[in-house]
Amino acid sequence: MKKPDIVILGAGYGGIMTAVKLQKKLNMNEATITLVNKYDYHYQTTWLHENAAGTLHHDRTRIPIKDVVDTDKVHFVMDTVVSIKPEKKKVKLENGELYYDILVIGLGFETATFGIPGLKENAFTIENINSARLIKDHLEYNFAMYQYEDEKNHGRLNIVVGGGGFTGVGYLGELANRIPALCEEYDINKSIVRIINIEGESTVLPGFDPQLTEYAMSSLESRGVEFITGAVLKECKPDRIIYEKDGREMEIPTYTTVWAAGVRANTIVEESGFEHNHGKIEVRHDLRAPDYDDVFAIGDCALIIDEKTDSPYPSTAQMAVQQSETVAHNIMSLVQETGELDEYKPHLLGTVTSLGNNDAIGDVLNNRKMFGMKAVIMKKIIDNRYLLKLGGVGLLMRKGKFNIFY
Amino acid sequence: MKKPDIVILGAGYGGIMTAVKLQKKLNMNEATITLVNKYDYHYQTTWLHENAAGTLHHDRTRIPIKDVVDTDKVHFVMDTVVSIKPEKKKVKLENGELYYDILVIGLGFETATFGIPGLKENAFTIENINSARLIKDHLEYNFAMYQYEDEKNHGRLNIVVGGGGFTGVGYLGELANRIPALCEEYDINKSIVRIINIEGESTVLPGFDPQLTEYAMSSLESRGVEFITGAVLKECKPDRIIYEKDGREMEIPTYTTVWAAGVRANTIVEESGFEHNHGKIEVRHDLRAPDYDDVFAIGDCALIIDEKTDSPYPSTAQMAVQQSETVAHNIMSLVQETGELDEYKPHLLGTVTSLGNNDAIGDVLNNRKMFGMKAVIMKKIIDNRYLLKLGGVGLLMRKGKFNIFY
Repeated sequence: MKKPDIVILGAGYGGIMTAVKLQKKLNMNEATITLVNKYDYHYQTTWLHENAAGTLHHDRTRIPIKDVVDTDKVHFVMDTVVSIKPEKKKVKLENGELYYDILVIGLGFETATFGIPGLKENAFTIENINSARLIKDHLEYNFAMYQYEDEKNHGRLNIVVGGGGFTGVGYLGELANRIPALCEEYDINKSIVRIINIEGESTVLPGFDPQLTEYAMSSLESRGVEFITGAVLKECKPDRIIYEKDGREMEIPTYTTVWAAGVRANTIVEESGFEHNHGKIEVRHDLRAPDYDDVFAIGDCALIIDEKTDSPYPSTAQMAVQQSETVAHNIMSLVQETGELDEYKPHLLGTVTSLGNNDAIGDVLNNRKMFGMKAVIMKKIIDNRYLLKLGGVGLLMRKGKFNIFY
Repeated sequence: MKKPDIVILGAGYGGIMTAVKLQKKLNMNEATITLVNKYDYHYQTTWLHENAAGTLHHDRTRIPIKDVVDTDKVHFVMDTVVSIKPEKKKVKLENGELYYDILVIGLGFETATFGIPGLKENAFTIENINSARLIKDHLEYNFAMYQYEDEKNHGRLNIVVGGGGFTGVGYLGELANRIPALCEEYDINKSIVRIINIEGESTVLPGFDPQLTEYAMSSLESRGVEFITGAVLKECKPDRIIYEKDGREMEIPTYTTVWAAGVRANTIVEESGFEHNHGKIEVRHDLRAPDYDDVFAIGDCALIIDEKTDSPYPSTAQMAVQQSETVAHNIMSLVQETGELDEYKPHLLGTVTSLGNNDAIGDVLNNRKMFGMKAVIMKKIIDNRYLLKLGGVGLLMRKGKFNIFY
């Protein structure tokens, strides 16, 4: 019998952890494993906002795939997925085509701009290493330009963050950290720099614990962040944004709008003809697609309903890593024909969000709220545990976050 | 009798050295000394091309004025000179007006664009700290953009340097040094980056020693610099340049044109009604303006004719520093009414130009040609000697160039 071909699309949290687990569990003569990714590195999406602010170098956030994947056991193909043909068990890549017996779709998210005019063209997104690095350089370039131009253009020093979810709030915290250093580098008085958050709801972190949310807002406001809540972004132009609040249209001059208010599943899922719900595959308990016994979906590509609330669980790095355990186990079962497939049960361990400057908030297991240094340390522990799982002690030592006072 | 007011305009090489010398020579009760400068720092113009390439941080190139000027003895006014009214012995500043008994004009150079269309709007110049820092950030931003954009735009990786004089050649050398590091930072294959020099004459460094010039070109070409000589820049657009060579018009796509092909004297001199030659004051032997016994001009604002060749000496940092000795002495003589004023005699010690990457060329005293490490060391000695003169051992230790192998 032919060795089955296992193809994993995407080296995000779910994809790379599945590959790492399979390379440990499977023998080379049992299956051929192929990992496809657009870049030759994996990156921690949850660290990108630090790269985008310039508080952490992007090389700290990315990990060469060959550092954690044993390329004797896993074929690595650096390419971009164009489409999946589940009927033919094929994946079309920009530079080729792959046949699979078992497929794992871990293609991650895309930014959703909800048709807001100008957003796609003029706003920046914290989406990958390239886009995060660009934001950092764009900030620096505008500070340099401000200082260079005779006619001072304050729009160059106004930074607008669209959306007050976890990404937006985390990024505001890093920006508040970064601005004093940026101002020193460019001889700019920091009191004239504005960091502005625009949020549609009446508060940032809507749905999150109100006490912790208030703590976060106070912490950020004390470091100069301005919140405009209950405001809807209407348009993003190269040199300003227009928003509506209380029925009135307002403008803020800015060259830097960072859109952190919406993600959606990768469009390849729906374009490839899978049954989908808002672009995500509503997977079975064993994380397989409803129509195909040989296709798993993971992370942002998988939709899992919380039966208690009848609404979907949020896609988090935590969930994707947990799912990789189930997916790897179930692939083993299919390859070795050992019987039952495991069911995935989410264990929500809670959320910890950094606010920059040695501050953070957390709402972890059993409603334990934390803030300040305790939450900062918890956040670094979570980040470090992931590195340990992914690449062992060596990776942890190279990329871990140890200096809690940085 | 009223204490005379000595006003020094500009804290470039000539101005700041005059101030430093006067604060040593004069007692506080003999005269009031005021130094006016646009920034609260002095900078070494001859190091700016390193800042613009990103091979040296701009803080290494600038020196806070209060670090070398004793502000108990010299009043420092941070302001921009608008005009001089020599008849009324007044200087108009953006935020005030100063009366003088003795004036030193050391306002430096401006870029000359010779009316070439688009150059003023779209090209960059290595003129001051702000413009050099902007070039560095502009390069980084374009490298980030190249990597971010799906449709690859090679114009972002083409860097055009207009002019193959000492500034242009020095900058090409620094760029050749910088590109490998930039490529690593932005994940770009360095073979696709182009550094292109456009020079109107048939060779770079026209008029300089032909052997050393050939050495410089070979050194730079071996590190990937392309020379287009005998070519005239016709237009600079935001995304490309147009030049003419052998009667044909050619285009190079580029977002980064650095114009290093022309300087002229500060326009304030001619606008203030001084008798001038191409914007410079053709000073007497004692460095005073022909029409005014109380006005000295120094550095780029002074024109001094070489009587042997009947053509002007080039304005160099070396000359400005030498002139400051004469100007300071002559101001002393005027204040103390001790008699004769010194005549300035240029001592041309020669030229050493860095080619980056531990290479340089020099043509120093008595036609002694040097290249390679010898010239590199000579260049650093010259730079370090200036710091020693300006601010003593303390300044030399803080800002000097000691690591000859970096």
